[in-house]
Amino acid sequence: MSKLESTIAAIGPLDSEAMAAARQRQERLTKPPGSLGRLEELSVLVAGITGNPSPVIKEKVVVVMASDHGVVAEAVSAYPQAVTMQMVANFLRGGAAINVLSRHVGARVVVVDIGTAGTLEPNAGLLVRKVRPGTSNLSLGPAMSLDEAQKSIEVGIEVAEAEIASGADIIATGDMGIGNTTASSAIIAAITGASPSLVTGLGTGITERQREHKIHIIERALAINTPDAEDAMDVLAKVGGLEIGGLAGVILAAAAHRRPVVIDGLISGAAALIAWGLCPSVKDYMIPSHLSVERGHRILLDWLGLRPMLDFDLRLGEGTGAALGISIIEAAVKLLNEMATLDEAGVSGAIAEVHLLDNAFRESLRQAQDKHQGVALDKS
Amino acid sequence: MSKLESTIAAIGPLDSEAMAAARQRQERLTKPPGSLGRLEELSVLVAGITGNPSPVIKEKVVVVMASDHGVVAEAVSAYPQAVTMQMVANFLRGGAAINVLSRHVGARVVVVDIGTAGTLEPNAGLLVRKVRPGTSNLSLGPAMSLDEAQKSIEVGIEVAEAEIASGADIIATGDMGIGNTTASSAIIAAITGASPSLVTGLGTGITERQREHKIHIIERALAINTPDAEDAMDVLAKVGGLEIGGLAGVILAAAAHRRPVVIDGLISGAAALIAWGLCPSVKDYMIPSHLSVERGHRILLDWLGLRPMLDFDLRLGEGTGAALGISIIEAAVKLLNEMATLDEAGVSGAIAEVHLLDNAFRESLRQAQDKHQGVALDKS
Repeated sequence: MSKLESTIAAIGPLDSEAMAAARQRQERLTKPPGSLGRLEELSVLVAGITGNPSPVIKEKVVVVMASDHGVVAEAVSAYPQAVTMQMVANFLRGGAAINVLSRHVGARVVVVDIGTAGTLEPNAGLLVRKVRPGTSNLSLGPAMSLDEAQKSIEVGIEVAEAEIASGADIIATGDMGIGNTTASSAIIAAITGASPSLVTGLGTGITERQREHKIHIIERALAINTPDAEDAMDVLAKVGGLEIGGLAGVILAAAAHRRPVVIDGLISGAAALIAWGLCPSVKDYMIPSHLSVERGHRILLDWLGLRPMLDFDLRLGEGTGAALGISIIEAAVKLLNEMATLDEAGVSGAIAEVHLLDNAFRESLRQAQDKHQGVALDKS
Repeated sequence: MSKLESTIAAIGPLDSEAMAAARQRQERLTKPPGSLGRLEELSVLVAGITGNPSPVIKEKVVVVMASDHGVVAEAVSAYPQAVTMQMVANFLRGGAAINVLSRHVGARVVVVDIGTAGTLEPNAGLLVRKVRPGTSNLSLGPAMSLDEAQKSIEVGIEVAEAEIASGADIIATGDMGIGNTTASSAIIAAITGASPSLVTGLGTGITERQREHKIHIIERALAINTPDAEDAMDVLAKVGGLEIGGLAGVILAAAAHRRPVVIDGLISGAAALIAWGLCPSVKDYMIPSHLSVERGHRILLDWLGLRPMLDFDLRLGEGTGAALGISIIEAAVKLLNEMATLDEAGVSGAIAEVHLLDNAFRESLRQAQDKHQGVALDKS
């Protein structure tokens, strides 16, 4: 069995017993049942993912996969290719948005060069796992071979497994790669069948006219490559990217090892789509962090049936939305574990019987009518 | 001048110079301009509130105002009045949701008894500033006198000023009071003119039938008391609550001292509406944290023109949504302060000239056509 096959084979269903136990505890905490809304649901989901009715989130990791894209030759981005490497250097110095947000939520940033076009100075903070120095221009032919696509996923699996072995309780996905919204939009169009014009956005900030060009490039990529919507590996190889494959691997490995994986925006979403195509049950382990400005993002979230936590008009990538998401998931889990129960706190439960309240209701109406003859009560 | 008058007199406009400087710095950070969306807007707003182009949020405080409501005699809540005091005791022991979330975001919880019906054991963590032991039944007459309403606001001002004097950089509002969704819905109906049926929700978890009764109680309160929509103090006195007045005072004091104030859900929102009624420019200092399940909440946010940060189906109160909001505002401010600029990081800016990209666009189209005669380009 390949690394990929054994990883997929290890992905099981959520632990329904742990979820039931977490749900029961939520009912006993000092609050009206359900009043913490999605925070309660998140805590129950993490219980199901981890198989622990009192899950702990302590070690937090953001994996940022960086690579380059041959399609930048088609002028699809507002930024030159060199920015991929410049931003990786910025990550390593701690000056990028993902560094600031990861520090804020107490997460470690792991930067992986899975396929940049250049060579970076050796750095303790950088994992060099280059599958190839950037993809080919996907509008002229396949972005990479099937072997390279699988290799990129397996790099992601290995990186995530090393982090999990070091104690990671939760993993967030992040990306860097000039040109990668083009590859991501092509993947979304290929898999969901949505038209490229519906899933192609302004990326780093191109004009509407440049977006039309970008749509044409994606249309051409799909026409030349004819990726098979039913074969996620084929889609990844033909119109994908190395960081997208790497993140798909991270997502699969997190699920195989029962860790929640927080999905960032469009590029991480495209990786989630690839992971789902390879193993649909991986979806249960994904927690989508935010709704991106990129117009393909809502389509892919709807396709996967995922409801994002935040709607902040983000379109940066790097894992920025996912880092904020980590903190919210951690909060949800802490509520489950740290809140007092009604018994512990000596707090009265709801006035339990509905008929009891209805008696009070009738009585109060009667009294009120007695006292205030002048005030009409419409439906008493 | 009363404490209230001098506080209102101190509320000025946002600092447009600080905002312009923050906006300029955002443009120079290592990201496409605007790509951090609402996080950028938040950082600029906090610059305007504080008058500091590099605002710092370090000391964080959640003020939880607790009080009782005579209207509970009308069976408007799923819980008995005793729960107000029981939950205050839970706050003081650190076992409530607001304690867990405040610890998570590094905020201190300040609990104020501004009008519970009973007497609590003395506790170092409890400020006893009781204006009166609960309101009167607002469905039978005014909840309190105009003097008491003003007193409740001034208690809130004093509590917030003490926290600001101790170094609070940001204040979040929280509430506890069985029956207070009834008072809040009545305030929202009175000020916005929306019908009670539109602004009355299920509170802590009553049935639809009990909600109909609650709507009637609010209709009767408005009919008996005829609060003047143009006079926020009159509305607060007739159909409000002591914790709502207290939180209105907290909001006004935060604005007067140029501190951002994070608004929780329905009850804090009703307090925001009272504060706005007393001094419309206070609105600029409010940062709404979340959209509550309570149906009156969206109406009041729309009325004030505030867009909430989170949509988590919360309906607990206590300041729980606001506590999560603090962390997001802190993240936004850290991004502004801690990210490297393009110059510092040696990162290329966008390919500046649009005509330059358009030349590349035309050239790439031409080349692509040369190479791939067989692939139609719709609009070249």
